[in-house]
Amino acid sequence: MRKGLGFSDMLTQKALPATLTQRKEACYHNAMETRKYRELVCELCRHFYTLGWASGTGGGISLKEEGRIYMAPSGVQKERLQPEDIFVLNEEGGIEEAPGGGTQLSQCAPLFMHAYKIRNAGAVLHSHSIHANIVTQLFNKKFRIRGMEMQKGLEGYGAFDILEVPIIENTAQERDLAGSLEQAIRENPKTSAVLVRNHGVYVWGRNWKQAKTQAECYDYLFEAAGRMKQLGIALESE
Amino acid sequence: MRKGLGFSDMLTQKALPATLTQRKEACYHNAMETRKYRELVCELCRHFYTLGWASGTGGGISLKEEGRIYMAPSGVQKERLQPEDIFVLNEEGGIEEAPGGGTQLSQCAPLFMHAYKIRNAGAVLHSHSIHANIVTQLFNKKFRIRGMEMQKGLEGYGAFDILEVPIIENTAQERDLAGSLEQAIRENPKTSAVLVRNHGVYVWGRNWKQAKTQAECYDYLFEAAGRMKQLGIALESE
Amino acid sequence: MRKGLGFSDMLTQKALPATLTQRKEACYHNAMETRKYRELVCELCRHFYTLGWASGTGGGISLKEEGRIYMAPSGVQKERLQPEDIFVLNEEGGIEEAPGGGTQLSQCAPLFMHAYKIRNAGAVLHSHSIHANIVTQLFNKKFRIRGMEMQKGLEGYGAFDILEVPIIENTAQERDLAGSLEQAIRENPKTSAVLVRNHGVYVWGRNWKQAKTQAECYDYLFEAAGRMKQLGIALESE
Amino acid sequence: MRKGLGFSDMLTQKALPATLTQRKEACYHNAMETRKYRELVCELCRHFYTLGWASGTGGGISLKEEGRIYMAPSGVQKERLQPEDIFVLNEEGGIEEAPGGGTQLSQCAPLFMHAYKIRNAGAVLHSHSIHANIVTQLFNKKFRIRGMEMQKGLEGYGAFDILEVPIIENTAQERDLAGSLEQAIRENPKTSAVLVRNHGVYVWGRNWKQAKTQAECYDYLFEAAGRMKQLGIALESE
Repeated sequence: MRKGLGFSDMLTQKALPATLTQRKEACYHNAMETRKYRELVCELCRHFYTLGWASGTGGGISLKEEGRIYMAPSGVQKERLQPEDIFVLNEEGGIEEAPGGGTQLSQCAPLFMHAYKIRNAGAVLHSHSIHANIVTQLFNKKFRIRGMEMQKGLEGYGAFDILEVPIIENTAQERDLAGSLEQAIRENPKTSAVLVRNHGVYVWGRNWKQAKTQAECYDYLFEAAGRMKQLGIALESE
Repeated sequence: MRKGLGFSDMLTQKALPATLTQRKEACYHNAMETRKYRELVCELCRHFYTLGWASGTGGGISLKEEGRIYMAPSGVQKERLQPEDIFVLNEEGGIEEAPGGGTQLSQCAPLFMHAYKIRNAGAVLHSHSIHANIVTQLFNKKFRIRGMEMQKGLEGYGAFDILEVPIIENTAQERDLAGSLEQAIRENPKTSAVLVRNHGVYVWGRNWKQAKTQAECYDYLFEAAGRMKQLGIALESE
Repeated sequence: MRKGLGFSDMLTQKALPATLTQRKEACYHNAMETRKYRELVCELCRHFYTLGWASGTGGGISLKEEGRIYMAPSGVQKERLQPEDIFVLNEEGGIEEAPGGGTQLSQCAPLFMHAYKIRNAGAVLHSHSIHANIVTQLFNKKFRIRGMEMQKGLEGYGAFDILEVPIIENTAQERDLAGSLEQAIRENPKTSAVLVRNHGVYVWGRNWKQAKTQAECYDYLFEAAGRMKQLGIALESE
Repeated sequence: MRKGLGFSDMLTQKALPATLTQRKEACYHNAMETRKYRELVCELCRHFYTLGWASGTGGGISLKEEGRIYMAPSGVQKERLQPEDIFVLNEEGGIEEAPGGGTQLSQCAPLFMHAYKIRNAGAVLHSHSIHANIVTQLFNKKFRIRGMEMQKGLEGYGAFDILEVPIIENTAQERDLAGSLEQAIRENPKTSAVLVRNHGVYVWGRNWKQAKTQAECYDYLFEAAGRMKQLGIALESE
């Protein structure tokens, strides 16, 4: 399965500039870029672990750069990922590079692909944040809040808009969420996140920075909603 | 827009000592100082991110040293700021050095300037701490507490004084807060902080150390008030 | 008591390959492996301290690799352990290497041994997480939850199964827990954890990665249960 | 005020061995030891800051080693202390070395000295932990709990003893707490901690390790008590 990172593999993968020197430079550029994005996935996963979004091997992030999608494997400690553990997919979701050793691609892959394809996302992350989990128990079909400054960090929202995030039901197998996630994305054209009951949240953005920023804003809003509920402060509910 | 950090630019910016050697030394000193303060802004922003005050690109700090104001740009990840990302302003708020690349100055700039001008602050910070946000939902026009040791960390307060922090209403655009922030500062001559409803808090001090110390004391008091409310402990309320 | 880590000690401890070169290589391999696992115990203890599982010298982890069990001493700061502080035991629990200096083996040792022997565990950890402690006060004989995604991180459980974790009563001396822990393990063949009232939890797994993953999943579920209870959300109770 | 750390100063401070070589070695030893303990105070203060015990310049630790007491100055950021910022006192509380620059000794000094003198402590720490603060609002004259494993980390207590920690009233000036702290220490011969209403806690131990361990155990118990109260779980109260 492993295709490796050698120059010769890369030479076969895409149209190349005319001269040999140009070819070599392009390959070297690709290998450096690839390494950079693999390291970025690892760094962000470590960071999300410290935020409580990726404990127990849960959660993670994938990102699309220069037509290639970088994604973590299934069931591994996200805070200990190494660059060589990362899968590389093409824009259709086909595996281009795999870490080998029996490692499986994340079950999130088909879910991530919906955000890439339907929303033209540049990065998609999945968080098991306990704040996200808890709000799915406080709201029925949609999380709803308004009037919070942190809404401004979400594309298309101001502080005084009503923010809604659809909640889908969890499934026994994560891959089986793909259908209802797709439906939620299509039925809520303004959303950049989908909550999953008793599970967590999927968030995407134009690129990894926006995906991360939006995920932090959503998480803040979920936490705030939980605290408001505990304090008896009125929330926009269904 | 970018003026850069070169010696020749600096030579044009201020009156200089007489000899060429003195001029060079002064410039070198300035470049080192500038670098130091840029790094300090970045370091403090990283720190505030770990405290939960600057998630989702929110929050931040600006500081005034040797007549120049160092300020972060708008809408960037505060925990990943680099020294070259920092704006430098003069005491009137005019941009002296800008990072270029289309980067915008923080929308907080006019708010920060009120604290610099009206209170002669040496540093101003803005926090999106969830504790600050929550207390604006528990109090009406002013947060009020008394009897807490941490009040001693606030200039002009002892543990047994009644501490009041004005709360202003949030606005759709952050810059539109400037008017009501100015009014709150003028109407509450003793305060070193202004809360913003469902948003966060602005805190200032004579220098960055005092601003940070006061911000930590306020945040502690906001958190304590939220916990006391949850436990049914009486709070000084409106 | 101290047997040290010298090659000559190792030469006497197990059957060795035929030639002298092979012997030396095997010894060198053993010393490197031993060092690696000692460091791993220290690293994991530091990590668990940051998670709040090992404050006040409480908690810790032991792991079995290549027939040897690595275990921390009793009553030491777990976040400051050094490789030379670690005890090495054989599979029967007999001490093979001790740090000397009057250091005592952890009182958890007989409890850990039950998981090694009865469940063929590869690692066992003990956490004083406040979330674990609190759920023992919310449930009687068994912690019970269902429908949570994080249950999937526990061997033998899906998200929609009812998860049960037995709770045993605490004892004045930690070693006196061994009997009831053994009974709980035998009476609950599906469990990979045992809670101790007002104390914490023991968790094991096939190897240290699984033990850690499972401990993170349990801790998440304990925390979620506490929050749900505070929010008045129905829990599966006795 | 500054006496510095030079060898000549040290030569005048204590009786010395007979030969010049011995003298030099003893001085070098003293300088190294002094440096080590100064660094330890800084390291522990940084650590306590991350635990939330020393925000807003509050809290801190002092320790006694080889007849000298190492103590932080007043009103400085505890997480940014440098070894040269530390005061060194003799066993009577007299200043032997001071950092100069107008720095004041911590107002905690007379309180720390009571624990050194009355209880022969080897280290005393002061925490502004919000958990300590909150329990002083839940209990009247004494914090009281029983049945918790973490009580075993406190000298003289088992898990099934009733643990009591006296609570004294706060004062406008921290130094004015010294009288009531002394009284609380004398009236509660078994305690190794005194809580201060709406303020925090003082904890001591035979050495810095025990003081830190006990402080972590107390903090855990204070946090647990707050959570239990929120969950409606019965607490031992007055």
